[in-house]
Amino acid sequence: MTARPDAPGRLQIIGVGPGDPELMTLKAARLIASAPVVAYFHKRGRRGHARGIAAGRIGPAALELALEYPFTTEIALNDPRYAAGMAEFYAACAGRIAARLDLGDDVALLCEGDPFFYGSSLPLLDRLSGSYRTEVVPGVSGMSGCWTRAGAPITHGDDVLSVLPGTLGEDRLTACLAACDAAVIMKVGGNLERIRAALRRSGREARAIYVERGTMAGERVLSLADLASGPAPYFSLVLVPGRQKAR
Amino acid sequence: MTARPDAPGRLQIIGVGPGDPELMTLKAARLIASAPVVAYFHKRGRRGHARGIAAGRIGPAALELALEYPFTTEIALNDPRYAAGMAEFYAACAGRIAARLDLGDDVALLCEGDPFFYGSSLPLLDRLSGSYRTEVVPGVSGMSGCWTRAGAPITHGDDVLSVLPGTLGEDRLTACLAACDAAVIMKVGGNLERIRAALRRSGREARAIYVERGTMAGERVLSLADLASGPAPYFSLVLVPGRQKAR
Repeated sequence: MTARPDAPGRLQIIGVGPGDPELMTLKAARLIASAPVVAYFHKRGRRGHARGIAAGRIGPAALELALEYPFTTEIALNDPRYAAGMAEFYAACAGRIAARLDLGDDVALLCEGDPFFYGSSLPLLDRLSGSYRTEVVPGVSGMSGCWTRAGAPITHGDDVLSVLPGTLGEDRLTACLAACDAAVIMKVGGNLERIRAALRRSGREARAIYVERGTMAGERVLSLADLASGPAPYFSLVLVPGRQKAR
Repeated sequence: MTARPDAPGRLQIIGVGPGDPELMTLKAARLIASAPVVAYFHKRGRRGHARGIAAGRIGPAALELALEYPFTTEIALNDPRYAAGMAEFYAACAGRIAARLDLGDDVALLCEGDPFFYGSSLPLLDRLSGSYRTEVVPGVSGMSGCWTRAGAPITHGDDVLSVLPGTLGEDRLTACLAACDAAVIMKVGGNLERIRAALRRSGREARAIYVERGTMAGERVLSLADLASGPAPYFSLVLVPGRQKAR
């Protein structure tokens, strides 16, 4: 039986960057290497993406907590069973992590990109940060990796940038695109044709760049006009670089 | 006399992150450490900010190219002499860097935050990337460092995020704030009272957080309502976190 530690461990929510393991921060690499417990989400039958990025840094003796999503596309997002199932899943994950923290171990929860920017770890932060010391390590965002690899500075001078989920309705997407100088459209997936229509209506189509798997193996960068129709994969986005040239 | 090298050197534009040297990427640290020439902007009488972040990584034998801005506030931004003076300055900087590249040396040009996100190095990229091999290393942005230190996840789910320069007129700032779920207002400086007015008119005032020198010594995080009037320093911004809670 383990004696109760003087203090519970610390939850470290660690952004591992956009995909290239060398785009992790020095701090992320240090904390992952020394973490006794490393936790990460993953889909059934797949190695977790954040886990893959951090693989070379995880210590050989670390305990890994693999948090497997209960479903991905089997249940529609608007089905009430989806929200209920995810809430149950997150509560169970929080319980597993809390059990290790209660033993006095620090737990490194890996997160793609930057944790506070549409981060997958936020539901666990909400459930644990009230009870445990929590530290968050920012990371290079996925969109930053993409605009860098596209060779496309996204903003200059006094540009207004909007970050838009591709799930928005076509009218709102069109209005948002028309009102800004530069844009990033996330969650392209099955929304590609609606995004194209909104870009056309807002006069931004000619500037739009499509990036898939930015900074990762299998990276693709092309003008959106050259992209064939059909659903895009998860790691894809559309960039509309700002209009001002640097002087 | 040095023999002409087989190939010119490579320009490496390196994001050094938001301020804490440990928030540099592994790639940035590696390239800076091995760079024979390190270039950076600075204001007269000050050590460059990017240079300060990277200080512990620069090799002892590296040649440093300190690029001193010709003026900061002596000439108004809308004075024609400002644009002319800056163009002349950037041309001279590009010439100094090109001279080293022509000798076959790689040159690491340091840049705060993320180079392609309102980056100070873009005028040199424009002048040099047509003639020299160029690599850009993305970094953790200043705004990401700030929302992390504020403990304020900026976006969840399908939030729309707008990044707005505080230099916008009050009406446009108000309209942009009203149209998004989450916002970051950069370039606070002397625009603080106009920003406050736009936040009030758009109903975002209660959620606004002010962050100064995020991740750096002298960091301040407070509710905007608690901030005294008067101009804010250069390294400050206002965050309006997204409205959706993670589930």
